Amino acid sequence: MRPVTVVTICLCLVLSIEAQRPKPCESPPLLEGMVTVMESPTFKMTGSLFFYDGLLKRLRLLANATGDAQDTLLLFRERVQYRIFYQNQTCVQSALDTPFRPLEVPPDAQFLNQLVFGGSSQPGEGVLVNQWMGKVPETQGTYYSHFTKFGCLPFSEIYYTPTNSWYISYFNMGRGIRDPNVFIPPPFCEEKGSRPEVL
Amino acid sequence: MRPVTVVTICLCLVLSIEAQRPKPCESPPLLEGMVTVMESPTFKMTGSLFFYDGLLKRLRLLANATGDAQDTLLLFRERVQYRIFYQNQTCVQSALDTPFRPLEVPPDAQFLNQLVFGGSSQPGEGVLVNQWMGKVPETQGTYYSHFTKFGCLPFSEIYYTPTNSWYISYFNMGRGIRDPNVFIPPPFCEEKGSRPEVL
Repeated sequence: MRPVTVVTICLCLVLSIEAQRPKPCESPPLLEGMVTVMESPTFKMTGSLFFYDGLLKRLRLLANATGDAQDTLLLFRERVQYRIFYQNQTCVQSALDTPFRPLEVPPDAQFLNQLVFGGSSQPGEGVLVNQWMGKVPETQGTYYSHFTKFGCLPFSEIYYTPTNSWYISYFNMGRGIRDPNVFIPPPFCEEKGSRPEVL
Repeated sequence: MRPVTVVTICLCLVLSIEAQRPKPCESPPLLEGMVTVMESPTFKMTGSLFFYDGLLKRLRLLANATGDAQDTLLLFRERVQYRIFYQNQTCVQSALDTPFRPLEVPPDAQFLNQLVFGGSSQPGEGVLVNQWMGKVPETQGTYYSHFTKFGCLPFSEIYYTPTNSWYISYFNMGRGIRDPNVFIPPPFCEEKGSRPEVL
């Protein structure tokens, strides 16, 4: 076999392997669904409705953990968060210093594994996901995250910091926001004249 | 409308609702795949290859958690377990008093919810699962388990006892056991003459 043929075959093999290797990806910019967060050491689980706007960096979490609805709106661009209490028509506004963390596999994430959650013997019995690992220098944290192979939807994440750990699961994820009003604070949040400036 | 027509319509509606309601189910009797167990309070995760024989009540778990392979064979009918150390060709045999817990949704489990892990906007982005809850009187434990809607495959489980909690995930589940020898103790386990009686 001529050397040029051997080199061409080797190059094709390398490119073929590289093409199979999963790449970091971004989730759809508008998503809604449900999220559960399990925190150490108790494994206590909190479930929330979840509305995500990656374009305007907004998040709404509506939990009904213990009978008292916990309703939080996070506006990262405006650096403000609202805790909303519809039953009393009151609202607690505070500064939001946490940086926005988009739903994505960051470019520096390390690919670990490809897995089928459930099975793959029959259609509908499982879902193919990629497992990634990375560091968050701001919190000295480490994450192990799963994103679906098809659609790059968030699936689950374990997040360890030196002081705590969280396990997050995502369900019923749907593209788009059916009601964009979920990101607008209700009128009684604005009445106190504490409307924040857009940065 | 005649009363008999009204009664017939109501009966059809009730039957239709009942038909939609998920029923407890049994997983396939022979399964192999992977399982991870996360234990409170640390969220430390252990992953194992997993071989399950629900017919002869046998389980083999092959973990490679910290570089030292942990290889355990559990024979529930014979009430014996083996810890196998291939590198030394040694074996530790001990009594197994834990009752066999088949992979199933027990008939007395309470249906909680139907969820899509991931999403359902496009094919391959998620998997439909049923969520169940129940008690294990022997351990005063409570479980919240997920089984796939199609195939009744184990998907994940949270198990709380008064003293501890576990989160178990199942991956790459496949029907059947490719190599049935995984349930036969290696010859060096039998050499000490401690072969247990079949009950």
